[in-house]
Amino acid sequence: MKQLIPHQVKKGEVGRLLVSCVDQPGITMGISRFLNEQGANLSNSEQYVVGDHFFLRVEFRFDDLSENIEELRKEFARIAEPFEMEWRMIPASRKHRMAIFVSKADHCLEDLLWRWRNKELDAEITMVVSNHLDLKPLVEPYGIPYYHIPVTKETREEAARKQAELLQAEKIDTIVLARYMQIIPNWMVKEYKNRMINIHHSFLPAFEGAKPYHRAYDRGVKLVGATAHYVTSELDKGPIIEQDVQRISHLDTVRDIVRIGKDTERLVLARAVRWHLNDRVWVTGNKTIVFSGT
Amino acid sequence: MKQLIPHQVKKGEVGRLLVSCVDQPGITMGISRFLNEQGANLSNSEQYVVGDHFFLRVEFRFDDLSENIEELRKEFARIAEPFEMEWRMIPASRKHRMAIFVSKADHCLEDLLWRWRNKELDAEITMVVSNHLDLKPLVEPYGIPYYHIPVTKETREEAARKQAELLQAEKIDTIVLARYMQIIPNWMVKEYKNRMINIHHSFLPAFEGAKPYHRAYDRGVKLVGATAHYVTSELDKGPIIEQDVQRISHLDTVRDIVRIGKDTERLVLARAVRWHLNDRVWVTGNKTIVFSGT
Amino acid sequence: MKQLIPHQVKKGEVGRLLVSCVDQPGITMGISRFLNEQGANLSNSEQYVVGDHFFLRVEFRFDDLSENIEELRKEFARIAEPFEMEWRMIPASRKHRMAIFVSKADHCLEDLLWRWRNKELDAEITMVVSNHLDLKPLVEPYGIPYYHIPVTKETREEAARKQAELLQAEKIDTIVLARYMQIIPNWMVKEYKNRMINIHHSFLPAFEGAKPYHRAYDRGVKLVGATAHYVTSELDKGPIIEQDVQRISHLDTVRDIVRIGKDTERLVLARAVRWHLNDRVWVTGNKTIVFSGT
Amino acid sequence: MKQLIPHQVKKGEVGRLLVSCVDQPGITMGISRFLNEQGANLSNSEQYVVGDHFFLRVEFRFDDLSENIEELRKEFARIAEPFEMEWRMIPASRKHRMAIFVSKADHCLEDLLWRWRNKELDAEITMVVSNHLDLKPLVEPYGIPYYHIPVTKETREEAARKQAELLQAEKIDTIVLARYMQIIPNWMVKEYKNRMINIHHSFLPAFEGAKPYHRAYDRGVKLVGATAHYVTSELDKGPIIEQDVQRISHLDTVRDIVRIGKDTERLVLARAVRWHLNDRVWVTGNKTIVFSGT
Repeated sequence: MKQLIPHQVKKGEVGRLLVSCVDQPGITMGISRFLNEQGANLSNSEQYVVGDHFFLRVEFRFDDLSENIEELRKEFARIAEPFEMEWRMIPASRKHRMAIFVSKADHCLEDLLWRWRNKELDAEITMVVSNHLDLKPLVEPYGIPYYHIPVTKETREEAARKQAELLQAEKIDTIVLARYMQIIPNWMVKEYKNRMINIHHSFLPAFEGAKPYHRAYDRGVKLVGATAHYVTSELDKGPIIEQDVQRISHLDTVRDIVRIGKDTERLVLARAVRWHLNDRVWVTGNKTIVFSGT
Repeated sequence: MKQLIPHQVKKGEVGRLLVSCVDQPGITMGISRFLNEQGANLSNSEQYVVGDHFFLRVEFRFDDLSENIEELRKEFARIAEPFEMEWRMIPASRKHRMAIFVSKADHCLEDLLWRWRNKELDAEITMVVSNHLDLKPLVEPYGIPYYHIPVTKETREEAARKQAELLQAEKIDTIVLARYMQIIPNWMVKEYKNRMINIHHSFLPAFEGAKPYHRAYDRGVKLVGATAHYVTSELDKGPIIEQDVQRISHLDTVRDIVRIGKDTERLVLARAVRWHLNDRVWVTGNKTIVFSGT
Repeated sequence: MKQLIPHQVKKGEVGRLLVSCVDQPGITMGISRFLNEQGANLSNSEQYVVGDHFFLRVEFRFDDLSENIEELRKEFARIAEPFEMEWRMIPASRKHRMAIFVSKADHCLEDLLWRWRNKELDAEITMVVSNHLDLKPLVEPYGIPYYHIPVTKETREEAARKQAELLQAEKIDTIVLARYMQIIPNWMVKEYKNRMINIHHSFLPAFEGAKPYHRAYDRGVKLVGATAHYVTSELDKGPIIEQDVQRISHLDTVRDIVRIGKDTERLVLARAVRWHLNDRVWVTGNKTIVFSGT
Repeated sequence: MKQLIPHQVKKGEVGRLLVSCVDQPGITMGISRFLNEQGANLSNSEQYVVGDHFFLRVEFRFDDLSENIEELRKEFARIAEPFEMEWRMIPASRKHRMAIFVSKADHCLEDLLWRWRNKELDAEITMVVSNHLDLKPLVEPYGIPYYHIPVTKETREEAARKQAELLQAEKIDTIVLARYMQIIPNWMVKEYKNRMINIHHSFLPAFEGAKPYHRAYDRGVKLVGATAHYVTSELDKGPIIEQDVQRISHLDTVRDIVRIGKDTERLVLARAVRWHLNDRVWVTGNKTIVFSGT
């Protein structure tokens, strides 16, 4: 058979469009036609109808996307409005500006930094914030600023305000709580809604709150887990991005469970952060849609 | 914001369209426009560019699809031709006509029948074919015909011809080798290309061929696996649909490994068959694309 | 080097001895000496000190063990007394007399019967008890009595008494609640302490109580699990024998989760029952020690 | 009941005894009696009969074990001789002297160093040896000597001799090949028999040899794995200590598989090294017994 259309390699800068709205006829066609008219070429695309809602993530190529993104967004808003879409359009080259909050435990921080150095995490790690000085030496070789902001019961609010100033000054858009053992005030949680990721060391909703490994030990579970979720105002109740478990045995003490659990925490947090950075996670109600990808 | 477009529930019969071709601009738009013009409503849809190829699976709703499927296919062929697409369009209500081949091992057959009774497998199990009589009592309560066709070295070809007659008479489109321990002649393999699923009791490509559990035992592996794949002319070399593993210990004898392995075989085969029946598997080269779904 | 001691194959009937007591010097030596003096030969043996407690499981060979078991137990009691041991000594050939309780869901029952037929479960399945008639046809081909004892709020106590009579008449020592959706009265729970196994369709302690799959769906977890545990007076709080999980996606409805969960339930329950029947499980406090084995 | 024997906490230094011989009556009693007579107190202990062989690992407490170890070994040799036992007796406080060999990939080295700093690995990491300079900056902060010994086809033998001198000078007893991409000469393999651990990036025996991830990609497997094994003269054929797998999808390129695989490699190697250092691994034929523990 003769190939009538000559094979063209899709060119241009990669962009991502995420859309959610109440499902109804015409959405897909509207979006396809828009992208086509703009001269965008689609590569990977996924759309799902879950309950009565429509969710879409599409990767497209567009010449000089970064320069034209505002224009393109303005155009797309006209498609989005009648469908009352929630949506985001982002050049893939745009790097999230990320802050990592830690306390004393080093494993999640170490792992994130290692992956970042290996280009697994597509972000600018702009600062590490901690209520302790312990992990400063870990961060220094990377040249990333380490802000030591001690927190006590009395200074909690003041500390949070200091953090907020730093975050704003650096235009942070993603916060990772890499075993940061302090409560985040509600006003800050709201400001970073769906942009603040926490790792909790249990397979939520089991063992919400303090000392989950101790309680896992006491309950005699055969699996211990970890859960990465967006932070909401209710402790450990936010939308789950990823979770995983590992087998333990009757020989494992709390100390062993802590050791074993660290590996799960590291992997689960790293996956969640990567998916978030690659715009693969969409929050709907108190759940997440995690689109495919790498 | 006012909702300008009234919310309509998508109606009609569910259909599936799978497409593959060399990637080039315009494919998605072409397909979207076609479905839109025909009055089809899209629900779930996935498209991927892997290497230089484009792969799509879309679920749509269309009034009286079953009656209009031939018409719709004829129309779509006009879109498909210039792109040199390989494609399938199927009403979801169409049931695969499935034959299960077995020898003496009962676990995969038992599991498939249980799932079928529980409506997990959307197929008509039209016959069970075996070179032994052992599993006849298992099949009889279901009212499914059980054909006993003994196979010896001398009668292999003749047996295959008998099988082929039965398969044709019953218009079988999917064959599941549920631990059928006989070689299928090449001409039959070709006839059921990408429609004949085998379960091999190892994590392929490890332990291709005979006695994989014995060899797993001898090698001292710590995990034993199972692999469901489409049958090709080369033994255990066909496109892999699904595989999984289970942990074993130094205490496990070959007998224990056989027992443990059965659980993996059952689950892996059942998943692969379900995905195949739900048109979620697309073969490209010697690999499979497995689209999301349930 | 010359082999001074001629190689003798260990002979005799296999027995199992399980021991638990406060850890202190001399226990192992005392038990070794006893078995040696009695002419028993040890094969597999495991002992652990967990916290301040000692746990032992040993397999030994002893001529005509079944005939001599009472004698041997009497002798061992003298070793056990000063150490205040809890202990059990059982010929491996002794078959548990097992009752299976079901309601309407067939998957766990079907799986247990299949394994039993395949000699994976070393027990006499003496009866199936149900508050419904639905699963009777499944049981009949096996020739196992199926007792239909309807339960309503008003007849709960009376039904339990009927069940207890049957259990006593048949000298049942192990009860498996294979998705039996009724509450067991406390007096019966006590009577079958550490001998009544339930399968709960969540990774406990998450989603204790009713409708765990619905709640898993609502919470948006990424893994669903199942837990096999001994029944205690507090609902879903008993000692956990085994648990496992399976990945789900945002595409999975409650119906899909139920389907996916069944596979985990079947495997987890089957493992727990097998380990129990092989005397590999020891309850300590509200936890279990699961000894190695096959 | 009155507790006749006063509860004594077991005291003394922890030691480990590992024994293997042809199974025959009297072994356990002989060992128990020996330890008892010497005044050793047993805590955890496991013994297995696999095939016709007996395997034992016991942890005991003994006053001033380190000072008396030679004496104790001499005594035990008398028990061991008539049974033709292979055996090891080691104070748990004895630290393995470990060398890590690397090339350019940093993930396994980084992970081992992190675990070592966190006291997960009970060893003295005495040196890092590499044919490249790339990973020197990673090692320097730890104060561990980094020996750069370039290797070309022509200098392979000379390089190995240099390495051997270093290893001898530092009395190395365990070598970890943490993605060291060079062939080890046979004479060195023999010298470190059952003491040289390699991580191979496939679920062996699948994809032995070069470029396993590329071949996994080409074969279209759905799981990629990693295997830690003792090095023998045949490439990738040595006794397997641990292996694990991770799921991949049709979207994953070789580059993605390499990234995903790193996590499995890190975890599998770390577990194998930890088990080796804790004397939990016993090689028999071309297989390993991995005793329980933490």
